[in-house]
Amino acid sequence: MRILLLNGNTSESITRALLTEARHNAAPDTTVFAAKCARGAEVVASRSAEVVSAYSMLETIATIKEPYDAVLVGISYDTAVSALRELLAVPVVGMTEAACHVATMVGSRFGVVLPGARNAAFYRERIVACGFEPRLAGMRVIDSSAAALYADPENSLKLIRNASQALVDGEHCDALILAGAALVGLHRKIQPDIPVPVLDGIACGVGMLESLARLNFPKPQAGSYSVPASAELGNIDPALSGLFAHPAGQQS
Amino acid sequence: MRILLLNGNTSESITRALLTEARHNAAPDTTVFAAKCARGAEVVASRSAEVVSAYSMLETIATIKEPYDAVLVGISYDTAVSALRELLAVPVVGMTEAACHVATMVGSRFGVVLPGARNAAFYRERIVACGFEPRLAGMRVIDSSAAALYADPENSLKLIRNASQALVDGEHCDALILAGAALVGLHRKIQPDIPVPVLDGIACGVGMLESLARLNFPKPQAGSYSVPASAELGNIDPALSGLFAHPAGQQS
Amino acid sequence: MRILLLNGNTSESITRALLTEARHNAAPDTTVFAAKCARGAEVVASRSAEVVSAYSMLETIATIKEPYDAVLVGISYDTAVSALRELLAVPVVGMTEAACHVATMVGSRFGVVLPGARNAAFYRERIVACGFEPRLAGMRVIDSSAAALYADPENSLKLIRNASQALVDGEHCDALILAGAALVGLHRKIQPDIPVPVLDGIACGVGMLESLARLNFPKPQAGSYSVPASAELGNIDPALSGLFAHPAGQQS
Amino acid sequence: MRILLLNGNTSESITRALLTEARHNAAPDTTVFAAKCARGAEVVASRSAEVVSAYSMLETIATIKEPYDAVLVGISYDTAVSALRELLAVPVVGMTEAACHVATMVGSRFGVVLPGARNAAFYRERIVACGFEPRLAGMRVIDSSAAALYADPENSLKLIRNASQALVDGEHCDALILAGAALVGLHRKIQPDIPVPVLDGIACGVGMLESLARLNFPKPQAGSYSVPASAELGNIDPALSGLFAHPAGQQS
Amino acid sequence: MRILLLNGNTSESITRALLTEARHNAAPDTTVFAAKCARGAEVVASRSAEVVSAYSMLETIATIKEPYDAVLVGISYDTAVSALRELLAVPVVGMTEAACHVATMVGSRFGVVLPGARNAAFYRERIVACGFEPRLAGMRVIDSSAAALYADPENSLKLIRNASQALVDGEHCDALILAGAALVGLHRKIQPDIPVPVLDGIACGVGMLESLARLNFPKPQAGSYSVPASAELGNIDPALSGLFAHPAGQQS
Amino acid sequence: MRILLLNGNTSESITRALLTEARHNAAPDTTVFAAKCARGAEVVASRSAEVVSAYSMLETIATIKEPYDAVLVGISYDTAVSALRELLAVPVVGMTEAACHVATMVGSRFGVVLPGARNAAFYRERIVACGFEPRLAGMRVIDSSAAALYADPENSLKLIRNASQALVDGEHCDALILAGAALVGLHRKIQPDIPVPVLDGIACGVGMLESLARLNFPKPQAGSYSVPASAELGNIDPALSGLFAHPAGQQS
Repeated sequence: MRILLLNGNTSESITRALLTEARHNAAPDTTVFAAKCARGAEVVASRSAEVVSAYSMLETIATIKEPYDAVLVGISYDTAVSALRELLAVPVVGMTEAACHVATMVGSRFGVVLPGARNAAFYRERIVACGFEPRLAGMRVIDSSAAALYADPENSLKLIRNASQALVDGEHCDALILAGAALVGLHRKIQPDIPVPVLDGIACGVGMLESLARLNFPKPQAGSYSVPASAELGNIDPALSGLFAHPAGQQS
Repeated sequence: MRILLLNGNTSESITRALLTEARHNAAPDTTVFAAKCARGAEVVASRSAEVVSAYSMLETIATIKEPYDAVLVGISYDTAVSALRELLAVPVVGMTEAACHVATMVGSRFGVVLPGARNAAFYRERIVACGFEPRLAGMRVIDSSAAALYADPENSLKLIRNASQALVDGEHCDALILAGAALVGLHRKIQPDIPVPVLDGIACGVGMLESLARLNFPKPQAGSYSVPASAELGNIDPALSGLFAHPAGQQS
Repeated sequence: MRILLLNGNTSESITRALLTEARHNAAPDTTVFAAKCARGAEVVASRSAEVVSAYSMLETIATIKEPYDAVLVGISYDTAVSALRELLAVPVVGMTEAACHVATMVGSRFGVVLPGARNAAFYRERIVACGFEPRLAGMRVIDSSAAALYADPENSLKLIRNASQALVDGEHCDALILAGAALVGLHRKIQPDIPVPVLDGIACGVGMLESLARLNFPKPQAGSYSVPASAELGNIDPALSGLFAHPAGQQS
Repeated sequence: MRILLLNGNTSESITRALLTEARHNAAPDTTVFAAKCARGAEVVASRSAEVVSAYSMLETIATIKEPYDAVLVGISYDTAVSALRELLAVPVVGMTEAACHVATMVGSRFGVVLPGARNAAFYRERIVACGFEPRLAGMRVIDSSAAALYADPENSLKLIRNASQALVDGEHCDALILAGAALVGLHRKIQPDIPVPVLDGIACGVGMLESLARLNFPKPQAGSYSVPASAELGNIDPALSGLFAHPAGQQS
Repeated sequence: MRILLLNGNTSESITRALLTEARHNAAPDTTVFAAKCARGAEVVASRSAEVVSAYSMLETIATIKEPYDAVLVGISYDTAVSALRELLAVPVVGMTEAACHVATMVGSRFGVVLPGARNAAFYRERIVACGFEPRLAGMRVIDSSAAALYADPENSLKLIRNASQALVDGEHCDALILAGAALVGLHRKIQPDIPVPVLDGIACGVGMLESLARLNFPKPQAGSYSVPASAELGNIDPALSGLFAHPAGQQS
Repeated sequence: MRILLLNGNTSESITRALLTEARHNAAPDTTVFAAKCARGAEVVASRSAEVVSAYSMLETIATIKEPYDAVLVGISYDTAVSALRELLAVPVVGMTEAACHVATMVGSRFGVVLPGARNAAFYRERIVACGFEPRLAGMRVIDSSAAALYADPENSLKLIRNASQALVDGEHCDALILAGAALVGLHRKIQPDIPVPVLDGIACGVGMLESLARLNFPKPQAGSYSVPASAELGNIDPALSGLFAHPAGQQS
């Protein structure tokens, strides 16, 4: 099967890191290829930048010519996941929701380590929206910008390790999620020192999509994820216009 | 004070209807003026069209030259409310959240009447996100498109009355919310026949904004609604680019 | 419009402080006048004293001759709010619920600073009853009696500032509520030092009532806030007896 | 042990019916005696009448000379339970909360049959306040006033049976609560026809109090049910004044 | 009445301690006798050992010849409570759920002190399953094995006292539950130093069962606790086989 | 990879049906083999039979000699899942939790169709325990025993179709779960007539396990799923005794 990794950030290096991680976890017969957005922030870090990113993700996917069987949303706010799930006929999963699903299959309650106090509300809102709050034991913020993470990775790893251990000791978490696309891949570096599973959303998302693709559900004909009526939207890119005119087109 | 009514739909007639309703409920010294989006759907009716609408709302507000003291989001999914709240220094309220606030100040639990089964999940998700689900008694869908509402208004009113009374009798609602920008103003037509308050989001939103504006809170310097770091976003309109470069600019 | 500020405490000085705050926030065309209870505690500080206060509030309102368009309950337990809302035809709002409504329109989750550990359960129960618990991030108690607050206001302000900052830093609150009529007005003194909006229930309540009054809902004819059947209650004050005989009388 | 059955209604006949039921379920060495309020409604049927009842209950208990080891609140809104629990040193239980406790020890989820649509919100609010909403499967209203219940008991029993069976069949309840002091004792008449346990709050409350009394907890010295500071309350009955001056006096 | 105390642990000494505690709290006319399991762990301390314990409890009860009117499950995970409640015609209560019921009749929110971090999730899951999470203020783990508790009881008591006081001070608990059969009876030793009621599940359970037995509900004929269809189970002990063939046999 | 399908029922025909379904959905390089219990009911249909089944599942797995990389629990109550997850080093998933995870990745809220009113509480309790209740839209019971399902499959399919459509129309479900091992495979027969995805727990579980196995988490060293201390359990089968003596042995 072919998974499209759709990055809501425009950063080339994050896209590469996400793709590496996705491929690392994919089944042998799974191909992963990536697309990044043309508009928006290098690293989305606010609700307003996320709005631009969501739009750009729709524009981007409308231009993808290569076939794909599933879409992995590679931005940790799970930006545009429900819009894409509605518009397309193939499975769509976000990296943070995927991590929550896996966390609740390996433990009782989970913790979240995340960079930047500003983000704490965003992730909590996402977890509430998915209905996972009853399984959320706690969150810890590491005060480290993406830039700082890259500048002094050893210190960042130390901060992440300390936050992780504090969640295990103080909140009795059975699993930990490292949130944020900027942290992708770091779970493998801290896992040896942490006594519970440490989860990465990309790794989890690849598996969830492989499962969903094999289940091969028909596109809903009713409910909130059924094909929206073909709509004419003004002043948008022709490719996107085409997608709205023929939603879920891949299956028809 | 001056309220900007920002319509996420591109329909001129809905914009006028919303503006009429807003002005009907505004205090004598409140001025309301409207802006509608340049891109997107006439009437947003899907999650994917909402993504375009959200982006278009940011673009639109970036070009508004007239001063305003508050923003009323005139699309019943409360599209882009949290992004605007973050980006601006003035109060921002969505029409559906406003109705929920008012409903819970006049009754114990409320009901929602909404057009189109597809929308039931959207409104529930919004109500859950706002934390009002403990106060939601029930929802009733009227199977009537916006087009049908306009084509046969008498029949639509009958459907709305029946759904409203069913919520009062069967779910013991103390208040009712008519959801959907397309229903704006109809609450006044059915109120005489319905034994509990019937709420319209625009009417409620104007009042909430007048209150918020008078409270005159400073723009947060911490937390998830603090001013986001000035960000450079690629490939966006210069006006929007300027807004991201100087968020919350009206106060600085 | 005219707002009746009904203080459930018998303290003259608190009544004056509440009235000052209410007037400070009222619209130019809003008149606020106050009534305090004849029976009960100077400062209600227990569930049992609250029972006396609730009764006294009904007795008091039954004797008010001046017309009013809305009632602001000036006791932070929101004492008798639902009884008054049922009995009267005009909007009634409590100061703590009003603050919660405003808090959730300016931020994601809010914190509460409150005086006296005894009160922690009272406020939480009120917040749960209103359905706002999903938006409550945390509470901090300052161990300071009303007497101490007045005796050493500088120290009290310091305690409040520290508790507020701790809620912002530790619980990622986007807004803070200062609970307790005894703290009325202090929000303005600490706001300059606190990076998120600091809310006062009286200030918030005035605005909510102005909004509700303008919406001008009919008195419910069904549901739990409909006019109760005219009832004969034994051994009560004639004025109160009259109110029960003709509930919601102002509108009939 | 001695249980004081404190009726918040002033009706002599309801008091007798409650007392009969309480004695029917008491252990051999338990004595139950009743007190009814001097002020207020014959049958409390509104939030405002409940405020009078609560005050009258405090006045009444302040004059009780006979010793007692526990208080059963005989009004189905559980009026004044938390105030009495705070003020006294002996256990206090309300009839509706008691039924909820028992219901959740005999089944998974329970249903509630209640008279009068107006009451639906009251009972739900009480159940939410107690934290039992996750165990509430549904409610059914029988449209029958207390007067009608007495005028045509056979028809009322039929309505109650039908509502009960509907809750078992439609909501899969494992237990049923008949709410409302006016229905006291009817559970025994319908039990033979209903396939799950039918609970009466008075019957349940007596047992809960016997258990609590034997556990013999000390009066809390901290927390929200600790002895409130001795308070001077103005313009109240001398006996009640004495109770506030020496709360929890029976144990000191 | 006769209560069967069914210990899911095979430890003779814990059985004796539980029985002593149960008798200490029983009414004069209540007889308590104990049975312990033949299979399984001395002290159940894992989910997997609990599975063995549950099975052993069914085997054990199938062989009890003495009549009993109620069953108290003496293992703090409330192991097999719902299975026993289904299979038998008499009331069945677990020690932890019983403590939760009592806690919520004496206070607003309660805390839990428990031995061993491994157990924190177990107790929380049990409290969530019972629906008491809205009333749970917090948990504190004392890092002390059952062995350590017995080896240095003074130190253990000190740890329990400290954890208890921390819950009162930091979480504003109105009541405390000591969880774990291994702690049985210790509540009396720490109560003098702790300012809120300290609850023991066995003490609470005896009272709940005395109440339930007196209510004398019929065995449900519908719902999830009705008599299961007589079932033939392969390869089980003849006595247990007989119980499955004639469930709820004591009443038929 | 190799998945062990562990059936908690002793029925040979159900085991075969589950195995067929599992293999139908497995990846090409996944091998599935089944084991069924030696003790207990042909078809588990009560909480008490489930206790026997859980024990038998542990006994059974202790004797499995063939290697396996994951365990799929093939009984729709998800019997013993948490015990197995604790005891083993490989991933363990239950068929009902797996279906809930998938349902919430393809829709907003889901419905459950289940056979036998007795089971409604069991499935709800399981869904609550997993934390999925916020996403549960409703349940419909088909009154059809497993025997009736086999005797008149056409009628059963009609009942299932009707219940499914009712959940879509009345509760606005975006996905449906057919609960109960006895219904395994029927989802494919009704899918063509139902407008939203119809989920089967076995199909979903296979995919979840393939994902979890590839993620290859270390066995937790802390938390509630860490390796339990090696324990000596009395009077159990030597093979099971060995498993308790060396839990998680496959990985060490």
